[in-house]
Amino acid sequence: MQINYEERRQRVLERMEKRGLTQLIVSDPLSIRFLTGIWNNPYERLFGLILKSNGEHVMLLNYLYFISDTGFKEVWFSDMDDQIGLIAENIDHDKPLGIDKAWPARFLIPLQERVPGLKTVWGSDCVDDVRAAKDEQEIALMKKASEINDRVIERTRDYIKEGMSEKQVADFIEENFLKEGATGTSFDTIVCFGANAADQHHEPSEDVKLEAGQCVLVDMGCVYEGYCSDMTRTFYCKSVDPEQAEVHDIVREAVRRAEEVIKPGVKFSFIDKQARDYIDEKGYSKYWKIRLGHFIGQQDHEYGDVSPINDKEAEVGNIFSIEPGIYIEGKYGVRIEDLVLVTKDGYELLNHVEKKYEIVG
Amino acid sequence: MQINYEERRQRVLERMEKRGLTQLIVSDPLSIRFLTGIWNNPYERLFGLILKSNGEHVMLLNYLYFISDTGFKEVWFSDMDDQIGLIAENIDHDKPLGIDKAWPARFLIPLQERVPGLKTVWGSDCVDDVRAAKDEQEIALMKKASEINDRVIERTRDYIKEGMSEKQVADFIEENFLKEGATGTSFDTIVCFGANAADQHHEPSEDVKLEAGQCVLVDMGCVYEGYCSDMTRTFYCKSVDPEQAEVHDIVREAVRRAEEVIKPGVKFSFIDKQARDYIDEKGYSKYWKIRLGHFIGQQDHEYGDVSPINDKEAEVGNIFSIEPGIYIEGKYGVRIEDLVLVTKDGYELLNHVEKKYEIVG
Repeated sequence: MQINYEERRQRVLERMEKRGLTQLIVSDPLSIRFLTGIWNNPYERLFGLILKSNGEHVMLLNYLYFISDTGFKEVWFSDMDDQIGLIAENIDHDKPLGIDKAWPARFLIPLQERVPGLKTVWGSDCVDDVRAAKDEQEIALMKKASEINDRVIERTRDYIKEGMSEKQVADFIEENFLKEGATGTSFDTIVCFGANAADQHHEPSEDVKLEAGQCVLVDMGCVYEGYCSDMTRTFYCKSVDPEQAEVHDIVREAVRRAEEVIKPGVKFSFIDKQARDYIDEKGYSKYWKIRLGHFIGQQDHEYGDVSPINDKEAEVGNIFSIEPGIYIEGKYGVRIEDLVLVTKDGYELLNHVEKKYEIVG
Repeated sequence: MQINYEERRQRVLERMEKRGLTQLIVSDPLSIRFLTGIWNNPYERLFGLILKSNGEHVMLLNYLYFISDTGFKEVWFSDMDDQIGLIAENIDHDKPLGIDKAWPARFLIPLQERVPGLKTVWGSDCVDDVRAAKDEQEIALMKKASEINDRVIERTRDYIKEGMSEKQVADFIEENFLKEGATGTSFDTIVCFGANAADQHHEPSEDVKLEAGQCVLVDMGCVYEGYCSDMTRTFYCKSVDPEQAEVHDIVREAVRRAEEVIKPGVKFSFIDKQARDYIDEKGYSKYWKIRLGHFIGQQDHEYGDVSPINDKEAEVGNIFSIEPGIYIEGKYGVRIEDLVLVTKDGYELLNHVEKKYEIVG
């Protein structure tokens, strides 16, 4: 598939115009790849694309990068050059300069100190909102990544047995991603048994063995041709006690309520509210204190979220997670997560795996 | 070993006082670990330590982090809270606020927009210069990491045979790091044969097989108890042609000249100049356009470098690389790299492996 980078940049320029911005520094390497096809990991070094409303974009490049013929004005420098001075020469000091989310203070503060009158403003949305509205090619890749995720979690559900370690299950998932053509995981695979499911930072352990009656929380995602998937299901080993079954049903209903309101123009805070109010009504709000979901694309967590404080409206092409949970410290945890695509008429799920709790082991 | 974090913070406060700073936002997770012993990877979320000259430091913490009893004033928030507002409440708006290198624009720009009169200034050196002057415990760990690196490169030198792939050699190195007690690599191991050695971003390939007469550039490092090593040697398979041997001798002499001037009080630009002038004098300056070295510690590349534009003076405890190179595109490359520790009387090498070229294969 031929990607039309020019068209992507045009969409960013339109958003810049709406915000009265004539210049914007893009530093997130994934944004630069999205807008130019050029991939570079600069580590701590300077790398940037200065987008200009007149189309005379500038790439900031260290001689160390193996990049050539970008088609933009190229400003090359070495570690020994006055890099901040070069940026200053390539921006208009009398106009506001938009800055993207990723630019670290190591460059931003020296630039502000060098050009004291310069107005630096938040400009990240201009590019991040465009990245958040996936185009047809991106949607195709993300569906593929989620299909792999669906296949592998079903295989994993059948594989899990009493006595296995969390690590063993996580390894199985990662091996199967590779077998299915993914290039790797989109984040470290999470497998939690029992009370570990209440710890959202738990790492799969070799020493934790699955016991009958425990919950099995699996949060997993892979990367397919540069795009990510991400899904969570919570199973039970051999049997499920009534309290955990009820909590699972509550979380599943919260997912359903949030998903069913999704369509273009709906505020993310409103989507969040559907799940949050329901969990609150059921008396579990103190066990769920995080956002409902996050955007996803080239990275597992992209800019933007589904939370009470995001009053932006959903746009066609947005792909994000819906993942309420109930986490009871020292006892158990439940999370159910789908990826959802906003379509012209409503939404489409990227995951098709059963959400009702299933018994494994 | 008991680490005295209080004493480390005190050293930062002294540097803040010299710069007239009463408050400093530290956001680099490795700096926070260095100053508190608390490790947390916040990914895109807010995590910070606000150091105050009156000792009433503040930690910025998301409920998601599994952290407790920090001993500091703790400001907790969820994804749904007004995090920028909380920062604003915990700083003095009438005094300059120091910012460390890592703080991304996603927080800095909104804070600047929220508190328009606030003076935000470069404050990173206050903590990075303290991190750069390693204490006794850190030096002991870094020596250990370099001892492992020395042992493994010598084993690798004996292992390399004509016909092997770059990837095979890199895998051998990484396996041996683990056998020697390292927890992993400090960066992706670099193994380059022949012309690939001129490409500083080359990744070890399974398809590139070693041929007689080729150079073998190996740049490797491991992590031992959280501290890094990093070293480069360039070998030759079966034989070395006279031109490459001469270039190798030039690079080795550049290393020697740079190392021999190292002592407290010497400017990093002066150290760089020794190697740079010599390579220039030999007519190879167009084949080496990067800095001479970088600082190292908890990360392979820490803040600070040995370059023509760094006029800071070496301090006791600084550990950095000396790594000149000559890279001739399409033909070959030579780099020789040691880690050097600045001592009271001069310097001490952390690497003890032969620098004169050796024949392998």
